[in-house]
Amino acid sequence: MDAVGEAASPEEERGRFDAALAASAEQLSLLSDDADVLGAEILEFQLALIEDDELIDPVCEAIADGATAAAAWRARLDEEIADYRAAEDDYMAARASDLSDLRDRVLANMNGGIEAADLPDGAVIVAEDLTPSTFLSLDWKRLSGAVLLAGSSTSHAAILARSRGVPMVVDLGDADIDEGDLLAVDAATGAVIAAPTPGTLADFNARRTADEELNARAAERMARPARTGDGVPIRVLVNVNEITEIDRLSPQICDGVGLTRTEFLFSEGAPSEQRQYEVYRRLVAWAEGRPVAIRTLDAGGDKPLPGITVDGESNPFLGVRGVRLSLKHREVFVSQLRALARAASLGPLKVMVPMVSVPEELTTVRQLLREAVAALHAEGVTAREPALGMMVEVPAAALTAEDFAADFYSIGSNDLIQYTMAVARDAAGLGHLTAGDNPAVMELIRRTVAAGRARGVEVSLCGDMASKPEHVAPLLAAGLTTFSVAPTAVGRIKLAISEARAPGREARAG
Amino acid sequence: MDAVGEAASPEEERGRFDAALAASAEQLSLLSDDADVLGAEILEFQLALIEDDELIDPVCEAIADGATAAAAWRARLDEEIADYRAAEDDYMAARASDLSDLRDRVLANMNGGIEAADLPDGAVIVAEDLTPSTFLSLDWKRLSGAVLLAGSSTSHAAILARSRGVPMVVDLGDADIDEGDLLAVDAATGAVIAAPTPGTLADFNARRTADEELNARAAERMARPARTGDGVPIRVLVNVNEITEIDRLSPQICDGVGLTRTEFLFSEGAPSEQRQYEVYRRLVAWAEGRPVAIRTLDAGGDKPLPGITVDGESNPFLGVRGVRLSLKHREVFVSQLRALARAASLGPLKVMVPMVSVPEELTTVRQLLREAVAALHAEGVTAREPALGMMVEVPAAALTAEDFAADFYSIGSNDLIQYTMAVARDAAGLGHLTAGDNPAVMELIRRTVAAGRARGVEVSLCGDMASKPEHVAPLLAAGLTTFSVAPTAVGRIKLAISEARAPGREARAG
Repeated sequence: MDAVGEAASPEEERGRFDAALAASAEQLSLLSDDADVLGAEILEFQLALIEDDELIDPVCEAIADGATAAAAWRARLDEEIADYRAAEDDYMAARASDLSDLRDRVLANMNGGIEAADLPDGAVIVAEDLTPSTFLSLDWKRLSGAVLLAGSSTSHAAILARSRGVPMVVDLGDADIDEGDLLAVDAATGAVIAAPTPGTLADFNARRTADEELNARAAERMARPARTGDGVPIRVLVNVNEITEIDRLSPQICDGVGLTRTEFLFSEGAPSEQRQYEVYRRLVAWAEGRPVAIRTLDAGGDKPLPGITVDGESNPFLGVRGVRLSLKHREVFVSQLRALARAASLGPLKVMVPMVSVPEELTTVRQLLREAVAALHAEGVTAREPALGMMVEVPAAALTAEDFAADFYSIGSNDLIQYTMAVARDAAGLGHLTAGDNPAVMELIRRTVAAGRARGVEVSLCGDMASKPEHVAPLLAAGLTTFSVAPTAVGRIKLAISEARAPGREARAG
Repeated sequence: MDAVGEAASPEEERGRFDAALAASAEQLSLLSDDADVLGAEILEFQLALIEDDELIDPVCEAIADGATAAAAWRARLDEEIADYRAAEDDYMAARASDLSDLRDRVLANMNGGIEAADLPDGAVIVAEDLTPSTFLSLDWKRLSGAVLLAGSSTSHAAILARSRGVPMVVDLGDADIDEGDLLAVDAATGAVIAAPTPGTLADFNARRTADEELNARAAERMARPARTGDGVPIRVLVNVNEITEIDRLSPQICDGVGLTRTEFLFSEGAPSEQRQYEVYRRLVAWAEGRPVAIRTLDAGGDKPLPGITVDGESNPFLGVRGVRLSLKHREVFVSQLRALARAASLGPLKVMVPMVSVPEELTTVRQLLREAVAALHAEGVTAREPALGMMVEVPAAALTAEDFAADFYSIGSNDLIQYTMAVARDAAGLGHLTAGDNPAVMELIRRTVAAGRARGVEVSLCGDMASKPEHVAPLLAAGLTTFSVAPTAVGRIKLAISEARAPGREARAG
């Protein structure tokens, strides 16, 4: 978008640059006002970049040295983008996409502003990639979906599309699509059919109708308690990845929270006890008396945290992560346990410990938790010792679950599959080994359910398996009576439960 | 050892350099003649370096440009050493130590040759590190052992020390030892006691006497078949890591080979079928009719092979390794299967597949093996379809062992522990989680033994657990009747077996 050419005087170029930055900031602010929490966060990241001297100063210096505003800006941003891309990490790649979004916006503003989208109703956007701010500037009520030749499922655009139910296919590679072609886009399977034959189109529309009907039935089920086809009550809990997710979620669709991830609290280093307490309190209040399980920090593995996790592990998934890390950073851990014990005085909060492998780890955590409660009481602070449970995600923990003094078990099927099959969840070309219905994985789930029954404590499953309707019947057959699922999956899972049967007379609500 | 100073004329410096290289080559050749196979290989690596133009030419150029021979040589070697060290890999670090060995030898030759060692009988060598050629030049019949402040257990010096039974402690860090101090060195525990008190010395000598007595009893057991205290015959096989290991090993101490690693064949890329055949044939001939299990290539994980393994996996232990890799490199795999089938016509050779996770993998390998045999027969080449077994090292394989059409099972306890506990074997600070007697690990071993019984096929265990006397009783109790151990552990393990009892009436020789 920027013309290559002679620079005007450094003063003129600098004026052009400052004006483009100011216009971009105003546009981003306006978009941000209209966006929901997630969208606003993405736009505010770009606003923060505009105000970041480390990013901007070198551009001003290059302009002072005679570069055009456009060339100086592009060079600086490309350099940053290359750094992010070089990290070969999905999260960093997504940040690279934010940077190129900002780069293009500022360049466009140097050339007179972004053109308004002029697309027909029902159009499918086909693009190399879609920046978050472009995504947010489009009217998705009018559009049918998006097909990206590049991009990744963890980009901000993809996250935004999922959260809004916009059908989007990413990373399609080359595609022979012309403007004006009729496109059939199946975001569930990633299939994109350009100029479909009448037969294909009829099939596609039949599937779409069936899907819409299923969605309608699922939506109708969503607010009602789950029961199997033969009337056995099943608990359906939700997983909460970030506190902002509850803003648009009614607690009435679920029986509580089965997993709250707390890593988001640590994204800028260890948070204060008070900040944690505020977040846990908000969750307990939101749940209106329903149980809320909060997982202690599960850093390490694919979730590095600067200053906390161990750098340079050869196999981070088999390294110092979860409770192993917490027990090495006692001060950080105790601060979290204190905040949890304080919030536990406000409602049925439960504490869940990740990556427990041997009984001694849980015993140590319980002792630290008791000491934290005693210390709070000694300080005159209101606190209560919450129920203390464990994730079952290490094969050894599943095989010996009865030996752990856990108040409840929560099966983390993603990691459990990863270790049981010895396949990292991000390993390329090994997907055939990690299908969720491997008999070894199912046996470990049955064993954990049996251990929970024997010890009279609840067993839930909070991995991706629980959110997939096709796994509902085998999991019920394994004796599972508590599912913890993605909020968007609640309706579909309750529907699948209503269409399945509980296993013989062993079935009980857990 | 090299003096800093003005260069003589480039011609004189070049002459000094050439003379030092020639002297070094002669010394290395002489040492090599006296060394055994392992020692000779290390020395020949250094000889090859002396003849490597890529290494030598830049030194000659620097000398021509006015540098002293010593400075040019040192700079060139230090650069190479830094590259190897930067790799942060034990193997590469060991090669760095070879390079510094060569650097010092050539520098010493520029200054008039290496001084002869002048050490009293029974002396302990205390040094920062010990180069392979220095190790080989010392008379270990006269010396008691070595204590290295730096170094690693995978350095060539350490490998040489282990293979010769020289007590050596590495990576001691700082130590307060003076020349002439009495030193008590316990290489088994890594303990080094300088100037011990009479009490400590008495304890130490008592332990040494007990140890020597145990060694004598173990040596006496070594050549006899293993039996438990109550008379049940147990098979003891040996693990072979490199073909050269059999040169100094009598087949009469064992009941065959339970594990032959074949990675050494691939250290310089995929070997020809003929070269593999020669090696497999040599093993079968050595075993004199005893069974020899050869494991197909187990690259990947912590064993990268350039051009074959996948670079940049986030968790290589959970990635494309073992049979997963072989099935992606069919041409390399089929060449190995052909060589194995040819050697199988000469004696009881068995093929063992690493990292099998699901039954389909083994079925595919069997099909490839049959096709290889058929192709060989069609070519008029003598071949036989060998027994095809699997390593049991993935938890899923242990849990579902009965579902695999394996002709035998071999439990790889190192990897099995790693995955069952979700702890990489090289993870720092997690050793407390990987003790071999975790009940989950023992259950997986019992399950595999039971699957073998049910299917009427042999189950052996070839991981480090089998080589440790303290695990003998629990493994016998788990029903194991075949142990595959490091050759140096045969005596001790047979002794431990003779002191244990077989479990009730279930005990049978497998």
